[in-house]
Amino acid sequence: MMNEVDEKKLWFDKKLQMFLETPEDLSWARSMVIYTPSIGGKRFRPVLMLTLGEDLGVDKESLIWPAMAVEILHAASLIHDDLPAIDDDDYRRGKLSCHKVFGEGKAIVVGDILFFKAFEALVPLTREFPGLNTLFVEAALNLGYGELSDIDFESREVTLDEILKMYERKTGALLGFCLSAPGELAGLEHIEVEKLKKCGQELGIAYQIYDDVKDVVGSFEELGKTPGKDEKQGKKTIPSIIGIDEAMKMGDEIFERVMKTLGEEFSAWKTVNFLRSMRPTLKKK
Amino acid sequence: MMNEVDEKKLWFDKKLQMFLETPEDLSWARSMVIYTPSIGGKRFRPVLMLTLGEDLGVDKESLIWPAMAVEILHAASLIHDDLPAIDDDDYRRGKLSCHKVFGEGKAIVVGDILFFKAFEALVPLTREFPGLNTLFVEAALNLGYGELSDIDFESREVTLDEILKMYERKTGALLGFCLSAPGELAGLEHIEVEKLKKCGQELGIAYQIYDDVKDVVGSFEELGKTPGKDEKQGKKTIPSIIGIDEAMKMGDEIFERVMKTLGEEFSAWKTVNFLRSMRPTLKKK
Repeated sequence: MMNEVDEKKLWFDKKLQMFLETPEDLSWARSMVIYTPSIGGKRFRPVLMLTLGEDLGVDKESLIWPAMAVEILHAASLIHDDLPAIDDDDYRRGKLSCHKVFGEGKAIVVGDILFFKAFEALVPLTREFPGLNTLFVEAALNLGYGELSDIDFESREVTLDEILKMYERKTGALLGFCLSAPGELAGLEHIEVEKLKKCGQELGIAYQIYDDVKDVVGSFEELGKTPGKDEKQGKKTIPSIIGIDEAMKMGDEIFERVMKTLGEEFSAWKTVNFLRSMRPTLKKK
Repeated sequence: MMNEVDEKKLWFDKKLQMFLETPEDLSWARSMVIYTPSIGGKRFRPVLMLTLGEDLGVDKESLIWPAMAVEILHAASLIHDDLPAIDDDDYRRGKLSCHKVFGEGKAIVVGDILFFKAFEALVPLTREFPGLNTLFVEAALNLGYGELSDIDFESREVTLDEILKMYERKTGALLGFCLSAPGELAGLEHIEVEKLKKCGQELGIAYQIYDDVKDVVGSFEELGKTPGKDEKQGKKTIPSIIGIDEAMKMGDEIFERVMKTLGEEFSAWKTVNFLRSMRPTLKKK
């Protein structure tokens, strides 16, 4: 029998496929636009949003829109991330990255199109929930600034705080939206929505730290991409500054703080269980 | 004495500089984000919007938001356009293009950030004019599809109609927004707003044809970029299919049709005068 997480994932995938249609005369473009969003892996972000939606009593037919917006924006940012001029990664989630299949020029523009599709996904809710749009714009901008910081940091010395702030933007911004959007749709007070956003941003920092650790200790099969790239590229990561053990400890502390807030302040127990079940298990080689 | 066009340009430039601030801890990023939008040239699109706004009786303090959105989106698309993987142009408006100054990786991400800033510019009007957001999303998507078509066409045969449709998207989509946004803010009927959008799209086709012709007959000084690139890159253009004279005739016919609609149906005489005054003069070498 399918579990709840798989059900959500399947339902989301079907909606996403439908939404990513291209205009009739551009059927040749469809395979390009859908390529990266389709090799979707776990659909962590949409499932997270739908789960929190259940905790907060939000209809999934409303939540599908911000969930698609997040997943599409995420996919677009991965396409640009993988380009030779940025992370130069030939693989993504175990498959060839977008520019390896369609060429760099098209990959850049397909990323752009997907950014716009992400904003299009929010259009059906704009009239009723204009605040959702504001939250999304903020998240997208922070994602961009995080990405730019990441590149900039490769060529200069940075402090631990700078890296943490970069993580909060690069990974935390979208997760902040994942948690704040269901709050906004549930009609929570502004201060509560902001608290949920903060939870997501912290979660992003924790995951990014786990990711750094995985890049050191993981294999290609586990990662679906080439391991050990951070060090080779001279990326500044938390483990590179405070060591793997301290980094793991920091990640765990942040993670537990978020679980406490989600559970005790929002009674979002389904979400807590989901996040615990998806927590990466990391072992040193 | 400053004329009305220069006044609008100057007023717009000042507002844009203020809007393109970066978060406090990212002051180093400001020069990157502002670089391409600052070498703004004529500010044709914003001035066009402000002029039509006067014709339709729309407050310029409202119009500044969609005007910034358009100009920023346009600048972002130019940054990506100039990249080696797409048009490979080292110069833009007579200055080094973004990637020549900051490197390719940063140029890609700065383009992304500017796309998001464009959407941010509409946030102040979202509650009162949610339809504006819808028009902008549609324009951005068409811009992206036009760009993708442009790249795709380089490697295959295309028909005249395909090129015209590509121009309607690549250049016409944003101009469609330039004319429809003031209509939307003026509270015109949906059908009237759509008619203005159509005028802008046609204007885009005309300008793109003029641009093609300029690329054949122009000099670096006139263009602010390297001429003769289209042919060298195997770009399919209207002159390359029907010849320069026929292309000019087609451009002129479309242009005059738009002038007629704007004048007779919308009494947008200031706009008609402005567009006539800005019309490119093209001479064969």
